[in-house]
Amino acid sequence: MSKVRVAVFGASGYAGEELLRILLRHPNAEVVAITSRKNAGEPVSTVFPRFTGAPLTFVEPKVDEIAAKCDAAILALPHGLATEYAIPLLKAGVKVFDISADFRLKSAAKYKEYYKVDHPAPELLAKAVYGLPERYRDQLRTADLVACAGCYPTSSILPTAPLLAAKLVKPTGIAVVSCSGVTGAGRKVDLPYIFPECNESLKAYGVVGHRHLPEIEQEMAFAAGVPEMAINFIPHLAPMNRCINSTILMDAADGCTLEKIGEVYEQAYGKEQFVRILPAKRCADTKYVSMTNTCEIGYNLDPHTNKVIVTSVIDNLTKGASGQAVQCMNIRFGLDEAAGLI
Amino acid sequence: MSKVRVAVFGASGYAGEELLRILLRHPNAEVVAITSRKNAGEPVSTVFPRFTGAPLTFVEPKVDEIAAKCDAAILALPHGLATEYAIPLLKAGVKVFDISADFRLKSAAKYKEYYKVDHPAPELLAKAVYGLPERYRDQLRTADLVACAGCYPTSSILPTAPLLAAKLVKPTGIAVVSCSGVTGAGRKVDLPYIFPECNESLKAYGVVGHRHLPEIEQEMAFAAGVPEMAINFIPHLAPMNRCINSTILMDAADGCTLEKIGEVYEQAYGKEQFVRILPAKRCADTKYVSMTNTCEIGYNLDPHTNKVIVTSVIDNLTKGASGQAVQCMNIRFGLDEAAGLI
Amino acid sequence: MSKVRVAVFGASGYAGEELLRILLRHPNAEVVAITSRKNAGEPVSTVFPRFTGAPLTFVEPKVDEIAAKCDAAILALPHGLATEYAIPLLKAGVKVFDISADFRLKSAAKYKEYYKVDHPAPELLAKAVYGLPERYRDQLRTADLVACAGCYPTSSILPTAPLLAAKLVKPTGIAVVSCSGVTGAGRKVDLPYIFPECNESLKAYGVVGHRHLPEIEQEMAFAAGVPEMAINFIPHLAPMNRCINSTILMDAADGCTLEKIGEVYEQAYGKEQFVRILPAKRCADTKYVSMTNTCEIGYNLDPHTNKVIVTSVIDNLTKGASGQAVQCMNIRFGLDEAAGLI
Amino acid sequence: MSKVRVAVFGASGYAGEELLRILLRHPNAEVVAITSRKNAGEPVSTVFPRFTGAPLTFVEPKVDEIAAKCDAAILALPHGLATEYAIPLLKAGVKVFDISADFRLKSAAKYKEYYKVDHPAPELLAKAVYGLPERYRDQLRTADLVACAGCYPTSSILPTAPLLAAKLVKPTGIAVVSCSGVTGAGRKVDLPYIFPECNESLKAYGVVGHRHLPEIEQEMAFAAGVPEMAINFIPHLAPMNRCINSTILMDAADGCTLEKIGEVYEQAYGKEQFVRILPAKRCADTKYVSMTNTCEIGYNLDPHTNKVIVTSVIDNLTKGASGQAVQCMNIRFGLDEAAGLI
Repeated sequence: MSKVRVAVFGASGYAGEELLRILLRHPNAEVVAITSRKNAGEPVSTVFPRFTGAPLTFVEPKVDEIAAKCDAAILALPHGLATEYAIPLLKAGVKVFDISADFRLKSAAKYKEYYKVDHPAPELLAKAVYGLPERYRDQLRTADLVACAGCYPTSSILPTAPLLAAKLVKPTGIAVVSCSGVTGAGRKVDLPYIFPECNESLKAYGVVGHRHLPEIEQEMAFAAGVPEMAINFIPHLAPMNRCINSTILMDAADGCTLEKIGEVYEQAYGKEQFVRILPAKRCADTKYVSMTNTCEIGYNLDPHTNKVIVTSVIDNLTKGASGQAVQCMNIRFGLDEAAGLI
Repeated sequence: MSKVRVAVFGASGYAGEELLRILLRHPNAEVVAITSRKNAGEPVSTVFPRFTGAPLTFVEPKVDEIAAKCDAAILALPHGLATEYAIPLLKAGVKVFDISADFRLKSAAKYKEYYKVDHPAPELLAKAVYGLPERYRDQLRTADLVACAGCYPTSSILPTAPLLAAKLVKPTGIAVVSCSGVTGAGRKVDLPYIFPECNESLKAYGVVGHRHLPEIEQEMAFAAGVPEMAINFIPHLAPMNRCINSTILMDAADGCTLEKIGEVYEQAYGKEQFVRILPAKRCADTKYVSMTNTCEIGYNLDPHTNKVIVTSVIDNLTKGASGQAVQCMNIRFGLDEAAGLI
Repeated sequence: MSKVRVAVFGASGYAGEELLRILLRHPNAEVVAITSRKNAGEPVSTVFPRFTGAPLTFVEPKVDEIAAKCDAAILALPHGLATEYAIPLLKAGVKVFDISADFRLKSAAKYKEYYKVDHPAPELLAKAVYGLPERYRDQLRTADLVACAGCYPTSSILPTAPLLAAKLVKPTGIAVVSCSGVTGAGRKVDLPYIFPECNESLKAYGVVGHRHLPEIEQEMAFAAGVPEMAINFIPHLAPMNRCINSTILMDAADGCTLEKIGEVYEQAYGKEQFVRILPAKRCADTKYVSMTNTCEIGYNLDPHTNKVIVTSVIDNLTKGASGQAVQCMNIRFGLDEAAGLI
Repeated sequence: MSKVRVAVFGASGYAGEELLRILLRHPNAEVVAITSRKNAGEPVSTVFPRFTGAPLTFVEPKVDEIAAKCDAAILALPHGLATEYAIPLLKAGVKVFDISADFRLKSAAKYKEYYKVDHPAPELLAKAVYGLPERYRDQLRTADLVACAGCYPTSSILPTAPLLAAKLVKPTGIAVVSCSGVTGAGRKVDLPYIFPECNESLKAYGVVGHRHLPEIEQEMAFAAGVPEMAINFIPHLAPMNRCINSTILMDAADGCTLEKIGEVYEQAYGKEQFVRILPAKRCADTKYVSMTNTCEIGYNLDPHTNKVIVTSVIDNLTKGASGQAVQCMNIRFGLDEAAGLI
């Protein structure tokens, strides 16, 4: 079988680096182009010395040229910009896997509410398939445009959706409290992200109206079968490079027990390669998913307050971004879903 | 004025080290004994090289001998053991400042529920004053036995008590989600605490029935003026040495606004030296309280879910343990409350 | 081609974990046994939750039983113990790849000098091939017993051997100053290794007579073609999980230039997959080799003191231990040398 | 006694923050002005929330206005700029304590060699006293202009000077290999300093011709009583916030023994408050000097190579910058040398 020819747009950030780490050892994919406006003309090793020897050079993002030689494009671009590239790529027949937030919301109104601008191509929102394979695998098999699930959303939706769908928890009063490593902020050169500011520092931010909130609510509502949900999502920055821990509090519905939760998870994820359900009462730990495409989930039930307490960890750059994009691509092109990811 | 003569019992852990750091430069206190069964006979510098030159040697914890030459005893002992020492010290007229959890709960039944043993001296529970100066300053002036507030409780009670007392938030459905540095586990030599297990790791633990839960609930209920409260308290271990961040979600009561929250905080803490209220909508950051006795508090109101969201940070070893003990001692002995702490 | 059947002895430490990380995705190898006295009977996921789902259970290290079903044994055992296992495994025809220090020194006298006991099987020292593929690839192809190069030695020998062999540097007055992440100490539960003791701490240790010293000197002397060498090797512990940086100072020989150094390195390593020579004057950085089997080398020449200054980084658990063992095994069994390692 | 009135120029970086941490609790000093072009008009808490409540506002660096109301000026400015301010301050009779490198070299030619520009006021080089109290205490008592010793130099000169002066080590062939925390780079917003680039990264830099090299050589030569020295100085960046470890290799002179080294150190530093000599053969550890003004020194003698190996640690922001400036100021104004520093 010939290899899937992949172009990576916006390859000079941390998601781009992680994509290259995965794709360069992917048995069925070949990187045919990596773009970076800033680094065009430079070998990949100038930006990422770890890839010295890889025969790759950053190029200008000339969509037509690149579209002519690739089957798949993975967009690791800032939101807003991703749409600009997606449109001509789709027209050229290239399958598009977008890591940005541009196509994740189904509602253009919600997009405007949270991003403060009109969505640049609202007609694409309905076409896009949400890139969370454990929830949308069938649709992904034939998708032209995949809106890869965000990092915080992946860590929030995977552990909650089956419980909401099984009515073991109530769709009201949910709180998601997350801690992310600093690569979650991208490769951003700004005072709050320099080492001495982050090390020995842990702090909440964006506690009201974070842009990942509507994405989480949308997918939780789909799972719960309700038109709308309102939750609290509270992200924190923690002094580590990678990974996210999400601790989620939900009101147990009548009849909810630890055993039932375990059964529902087993049914939902028992056959999944990239979801690991811990034995009851244990808590997930970021260190066990670092540099893997796995989501690890622990669950507990507090009789004192009748809350279901779920802990869920992912590597923000792998399952939360680049690994997930490759997993979606593998599905779309009929490859082994885990190719390149183990 | 002659100096307060202080004995530190159990001085070889992190709280002990922090006590020495503070007391050795305290203008009105003098360390007259430091005890450690394991290190008796060794100079302080054997355990803590940073105190090389300080003329202190660990001694056996012979209570009678030590009681005869000190005015105050600070107990940095494991819970259970603290009571054993407190009883004879109190009999000898020494003022006791206990950093353990032995005297924090008013209810012996709660103690048994969470610690699984009968309280060894339940009659002392009523006598003990809770060592949180911003809440109990007047009682502390005459206390013989001070049960210094715990680290997680300090970070949880300071930001919530005024809001509960002012009825700006409801006393139901409160969730406290905390992240602590690893010194919070004490100077414990155990696999989960070695560097490679903690670094790049963030995980919840004790999510149901943590021993700090009844202490937090007791003080929140006192503040709210209700007989009992049931909250969720979810601690996490984060890859840093010191400090705690507590992010707290509460249901706003009718009429609650950001302005009113600000006013209530101003009234409660405007004159406090060791509480810093941030401007509305900002979040606290552990790095700004590290190695200080300050509690920094940020507050926000989410109109989407009508939740008050408070972030609160302390240094677990200072305001969460040793600094607080010294603050209480300063009050008890009529010293400048901030002596040795700034 | 049938897969190489591999047994891992002493699989519950960090080198064991890294071996499993590599071998579980190795296309031509199959793990048939993992031993651990302490964890015998437990599934691998009890010790390493990241391997949940891998159908592996720790067993007692019964050599005969295990030898009967494996082609290769990788020993991740404490030194001293490794020999005990190696002897019967070799008798049973199993190829042995030892990660410990037991067979690295050619001289039993040196072993005794540094390990303070007689070598338990000095006759094996001559048989063992030193497991540093870039130096001993040909001998490795037929070796029965491979003494995988140590972590500090790998980072020291790779950058110096070609320069010594080409007489660009003098074999006298060499200083190797290294900094290692904390996994270098193994999964050791001891006070100096708990997080709060290591974080924000950097310190030298074993500055005189470290056990890796004779190994480094032996291989440098072989390269230089001199009977004996005496160097300084100064290790440090740094607050990170993985990797080693070795900074090496050597006296430039007459006629040594940056260009010649570059040429010698190109000749020695130009075709090596796992050695990356940086452009002249740049310094190596541990972050670019973390979780890879690569050794990155930078070089410089100080006209002020006529010293060649080389910086060299590896991942101590990969190229410094488990990755190197697998690389050696790949060579021995005629596999692609990089199988499982990229 | 009235307090020394201090102005801090360039107070918005890490050295400035550390100066404020020290000076705000200094019993005999008062901060009368803090300057920052960028933050002029803003309260100190805007830049450093930890100082909320301190009645300080950044002002424009108007030298004449500020000179009129202060006794001492501490310059935490970039090199080059410091001279511009020092000249008018000195004219106005203000004692100047410069933390930059502007006045540390006695030779304008060396300055030009390493800084690539002519020194802006070479006539001041002779006037400046080198701000390392343990070496120049007497001159500091009457100095008008103090060139506070640099961070790497302090950690290198204190352990070597007495040994060189006593001829226990040779003045040739010395290598200083140092590792610094990231605050050593200042509060610099640049890609190499963001958290994900520094964490889990250790790397050398500036291995040839670092600007601290001539300063170290100058002071070593003074101590050795030789006209010139040429050493190697190899700095590294380590993943921690504060502190420096310098490991120094020197050739032992004839008759050098551990005992003699110990005696020489005792004579040099036995009465020093801020130098701690460890027992022979132990190594210094940065964690024991963090946030203190202490330099900790360990020493060893390697009979194998006849090298004296010294390890030396300081907090780069305290003894390596701001603490040292305050120590110098205390000496100059006849205060307790440790005022504000313990």
